[in-house]
Amino acid sequence: MKKGLFITFEGADGSGKTTQLNKIKDLLVEQGFDVVVTREPGSLDIGQKIRNILLHQEGFVSDRCEMFLFLADRSQHVDELIKPAVEQGKIVLCDRHTDSTVAYQGYGRGQDIELLKRLNKIAVDGIVPDLTLLFDVSTQTAQDRVGSEKDRMESAGAKFHSRVRNGYLELQKENPDRIKIIDANNDIDKVFEDTKNIVVKLIQESRGV
Amino acid sequence: MKKGLFITFEGADGSGKTTQLNKIKDLLVEQGFDVVVTREPGSLDIGQKIRNILLHQEGFVSDRCEMFLFLADRSQHVDELIKPAVEQGKIVLCDRHTDSTVAYQGYGRGQDIELLKRLNKIAVDGIVPDLTLLFDVSTQTAQDRVGSEKDRMESAGAKFHSRVRNGYLELQKENPDRIKIIDANNDIDKVFEDTKNIVVKLIQESRGV
Repeated sequence: MKKGLFITFEGADGSGKTTQLNKIKDLLVEQGFDVVVTREPGSLDIGQKIRNILLHQEGFVSDRCEMFLFLADRSQHVDELIKPAVEQGKIVLCDRHTDSTVAYQGYGRGQDIELLKRLNKIAVDGIVPDLTLLFDVSTQTAQDRVGSEKDRMESAGAKFHSRVRNGYLELQKENPDRIKIIDANNDIDKVFEDTKNIVVKLIQESRGV
Repeated sequence: MKKGLFITFEGADGSGKTTQLNKIKDLLVEQGFDVVVTREPGSLDIGQKIRNILLHQEGFVSDRCEMFLFLADRSQHVDELIKPAVEQGKIVLCDRHTDSTVAYQGYGRGQDIELLKRLNKIAVDGIVPDLTLLFDVSTQTAQDRVGSEKDRMESAGAKFHSRVRNGYLELQKENPDRIKIIDANNDIDKVFEDTKNIVVKLIQESRGV
């Protein structure tokens, strides 16, 4: 395998995507793969500063300001981490990426979806995930799991989550080859089984097995 | 005067634009105008955090990351400060705005100029300066004035400054009604005289005098 793989994990907070990402990481490391785990926003030093602004700013944050901050973080992340790692043959597992922007800012907050897609294209500079795992979960289940630990992004309520979920499902319909839905209402072991099957299939295909 | 005015001050570091902005502020306040002085990047709390990232980040900052951070700052600045102030009839004096992005990131760093203009349009959400004062100064004079107090943005050298200056002059040719050139190689009093004449004329016109 000369070129690596770029796999993104998407879904609502409480969908279990981060848990599954770590389980997939353990599995792949065990099998000898060179794995990089990362996330958006805020995986790098500069991104952490941006993430802090986004999550902990008090008072009014303009929608367009938020959008551009996510894109700044993403641009740096792609250039400094994702692109070099994939070029070095590593498997990059990324917690949230372009689809989060479209689902949350677009479908969730009502910003211009086509504009967000165009801006995403500028930010990623040609890097598109080889696979996106969409952990789809009912709004009720997501909220039960998140419980009381809410930050600014998570406190927007059930209607918001419902719009975001719908956005993700729309994106999947538009990109059926890239985005694979996993029923994340199931228990952790069943979700991992489903996740593992999709990831293993991709790796086998990419190695020409 | 029901609607206020939005005036931007542009030019290289060392052009004296900030000094002139403050002198114009004093003049207008003396005459009883409600004046707001601001700057980009970093006039607001959230903008200050963004400005700190831009000016003091160590190591590699992706061009696209920098571009989106400036746009985030600008969006928040327009929504939280500039637009409300102008709607309240105030005169907003802003140290750097959209033209800085095109001159510095576009002409200076070689980013896509048409893309920057399109992104600026998204950031400003319909707000365009009633007047832009372009303090044009030779690269040598600017560098002599800036001296040894250099930050990351200012340490890029004479060739960079020359490209930025050229960019500003191109923008002026494209927007001759909005952008007025002031010869900032002159001494402070002569520059103020020229600046004052243009600003007073605009205010008289806006009041229908």
